[in-house]
Amino acid sequence: MKYQVIIIGGGPAGYTAAEAAGKAGMSVLLIEKRSVGGVCLNEGCIPTKTLLYSAKLLDNAKGASKYAITAGDVSFDLPKIIARKNKVVRKLVLGIKAKLSASQVSMVDGTATIVDKNHVQVGEDIYEGEKLIICTGSETFVPTITGLDQVDYWTHRNALDAKELPASLTIVGGGVIGMEFASFFNSLGVKVTVIEMMDEVLSGMDKELSGHLRHEYAKRGIQFLLQTRVVALSQDSDGICVTYEQDEEKATIVSEKLLLSVGRKAVMHGFGLENLGLQLTQRGNVVVNEHMETSLSGVYACGDITGFSLLAHTAVREAEVAVNHLLGKPDTMSYRAIPGVVYTNPEFAGVGQTEESLLAKGITYCAETIPMAYSGRFVAENEGVNGYCKLLLDEDKRIIGAHVLGNPASEIITLAGIAIEMMMTAAEFKKIVIPHPTVGEIFREAL
Amino acid sequence: MKYQVIIIGGGPAGYTAAEAAGKAGMSVLLIEKRSVGGVCLNEGCIPTKTLLYSAKLLDNAKGASKYAITAGDVSFDLPKIIARKNKVVRKLVLGIKAKLSASQVSMVDGTATIVDKNHVQVGEDIYEGEKLIICTGSETFVPTITGLDQVDYWTHRNALDAKELPASLTIVGGGVIGMEFASFFNSLGVKVTVIEMMDEVLSGMDKELSGHLRHEYAKRGIQFLLQTRVVALSQDSDGICVTYEQDEEKATIVSEKLLLSVGRKAVMHGFGLENLGLQLTQRGNVVVNEHMETSLSGVYACGDITGFSLLAHTAVREAEVAVNHLLGKPDTMSYRAIPGVVYTNPEFAGVGQTEESLLAKGITYCAETIPMAYSGRFVAENEGVNGYCKLLLDEDKRIIGAHVLGNPASEIITLAGIAIEMMMTAAEFKKIVIPHPTVGEIFREAL
Repeated sequence: MKYQVIIIGGGPAGYTAAEAAGKAGMSVLLIEKRSVGGVCLNEGCIPTKTLLYSAKLLDNAKGASKYAITAGDVSFDLPKIIARKNKVVRKLVLGIKAKLSASQVSMVDGTATIVDKNHVQVGEDIYEGEKLIICTGSETFVPTITGLDQVDYWTHRNALDAKELPASLTIVGGGVIGMEFASFFNSLGVKVTVIEMMDEVLSGMDKELSGHLRHEYAKRGIQFLLQTRVVALSQDSDGICVTYEQDEEKATIVSEKLLLSVGRKAVMHGFGLENLGLQLTQRGNVVVNEHMETSLSGVYACGDITGFSLLAHTAVREAEVAVNHLLGKPDTMSYRAIPGVVYTNPEFAGVGQTEESLLAKGITYCAETIPMAYSGRFVAENEGVNGYCKLLLDEDKRIIGAHVLGNPASEIITLAGIAIEMMMTAAEFKKIVIPHPTVGEIFREAL
Repeated sequence: MKYQVIIIGGGPAGYTAAEAAGKAGMSVLLIEKRSVGGVCLNEGCIPTKTLLYSAKLLDNAKGASKYAITAGDVSFDLPKIIARKNKVVRKLVLGIKAKLSASQVSMVDGTATIVDKNHVQVGEDIYEGEKLIICTGSETFVPTITGLDQVDYWTHRNALDAKELPASLTIVGGGVIGMEFASFFNSLGVKVTVIEMMDEVLSGMDKELSGHLRHEYAKRGIQFLLQTRVVALSQDSDGICVTYEQDEEKATIVSEKLLLSVGRKAVMHGFGLENLGLQLTQRGNVVVNEHMETSLSGVYACGDITGFSLLAHTAVREAEVAVNHLLGKPDTMSYRAIPGVVYTNPEFAGVGQTEESLLAKGITYCAETIPMAYSGRFVAENEGVNGYCKLLLDEDKRIIGAHVLGNPASEIITLAGIAIEMMMTAAEFKKIVIPHPTVGEIFREAL
């Protein structure tokens, strides 16, 4: 069986590449060992956002009296929330399968093993391909902690399918996954503690706004332990004991459940990658050029395995670039304007440079920060809620970074993303007409 | 008293021009006869969106069980909804006043009378100005209907401050204002009938999606009478009788209240405009060039009086262009990508060309229409709700129109707006990274 393209991994990178190559008329084989959609769709982006939307409606109903709306007893049904999440995932997986079928993509369920750049084995079958695109994604990184094997901890996967609500939950790792689950379980009434090794949650995002978001959740009852290292885990009759070190002092917190969300790592093993002898980065990711081609001609790598951002939308764009290169269409990957979003309530999103990244590089910049209340619509829809918009400009007044804390940051951040990608100056961006009243107008107000 | 710039009218055009000119160091006089912020802020965009947000929370609480959230008795308090609306308006008016003060803008309360291009009178005082910017906005157009003087009808202004909820409401005019009030009162349980002269509501917006929106509201109980002309009004003991003609048949509908929202007209009289002898368009608006300068050098017109769109964001941009021209900064007005938004639930937004406008001009185009369910986030947050995204491309595959029915259309439409303004091709637009999962991704999906 011979194909023009073989793709390993059916997550956002893999299914995007498969659909695009198939649509362009290439014969495509997509190999996926679990479920098409990958971590993102099956146990990441989509399921968390579905859960978080239920939580948001719960919060909104409880807080509706600020808007002169009264809801009586507000409650939730966790099994139903989870069931709806599963239904949403199923629907979207079917949608992707349908798109792949429509693009004439052949699909194989199973674990791929790369024999060489033109041959991939699944079970007994060996498939031949002219080109190979590797999209194996990433998996949960579980740190080595004393006593880890003694406790029944959760990863995000278990948290997504919680049968019952714990009374208390300790989350180790205050990154995006940690903060989103902290938000979800806090909304549902769980006592949440977040332990973070760094001096602020959401490393990589704008630090000032991350601090504002943390303060907001602290007001809602989440306990944050920053600059805190977990040194031991154990189980006793009261629950899971997490022993941590802070300021050289040790202490222990006991909670019913423990969620480990300290990070993710690229999947580099178990599929014969070593048989290709690809060049790797110092951090162990696959080296790619601006067309996503690896050190081996005809072999591409897209998504988390390249180590650029571990984000679905990066993977999607990388896959498009790879396929365009296969097809001879001019296209190159740009990482200038990759948005990052935290789906807390309020949402927090950023794109381009942060003050921290600019300071580290010694680049001169100017920051324009305004409260979200400069947007009339934000005021109309956010009673008693604060938020901030920060734009970063370089010496030529080009927009090089944008950070928004406030709903719907996720949906408006790309307005600034386009400006950054296209290297627009403040004056050029102000020529864009943004409808009034919208929260998106905040970018014009900040300039 | 001599100023470098005199501005008549303190709505979005006027306050934007005043702030920009003041910030640039010019001496500025702003004359407003009612309240700074104009119709938009005091009795238009902002108050309606505030009311509609309360209605949306009401709808969301009632429909929360679809997301496994239960709210007991859901109710609302109309006087409190209105009071909150007034508070939001007050807060934003104060914000604008503060910005104007910070920009050293002098403000006069009163009715301006233009003496000549360099002199404006308010009461006994005559002010001298080097440049004049006319931003008098628009007012409700009340049509001549037999019996109009016999009935106690509402304009949008009365509807915004309804003390009590009518049992039934007839809305004459199914444009943006009519549809937004129809949505609001429908959510609050009022029996609403919308009478529209044309064969579809929301004239000027994409007709196909307007029809989908109308069907949605019809399912929620709003009665629509299209291609229907109101011929007489009267009051009897049962309420206000609206006699209409449809298919050459006459009929009468009786409702407790009547809202007239057939349109708005530019304010051209009552402030001495005739003393300038400006060139007018055939439809009676002020002729301006691409710098918003009228036929009289040094006299600018911005906002509704130019007749381009009667939208606040058009006015804001026009004001910026006018002030940049005053300041000698290169800038020209572009109407290529002015978004229009209807804040119904779901929201409906469009930018650039419509199929109707292209057909009328005989321009060849291609339409890509997909259901909103192509966005994973839309599926996660819209249980049992449909929507559509339509992109219009010209023969060179440039994006020339975009239309979205589905939340949050208002906030994402500008993504397409930027593409249209910058004349991007589909391939160029696909290089923009849109965060996953967001509703904004729908534009990438459609291409």
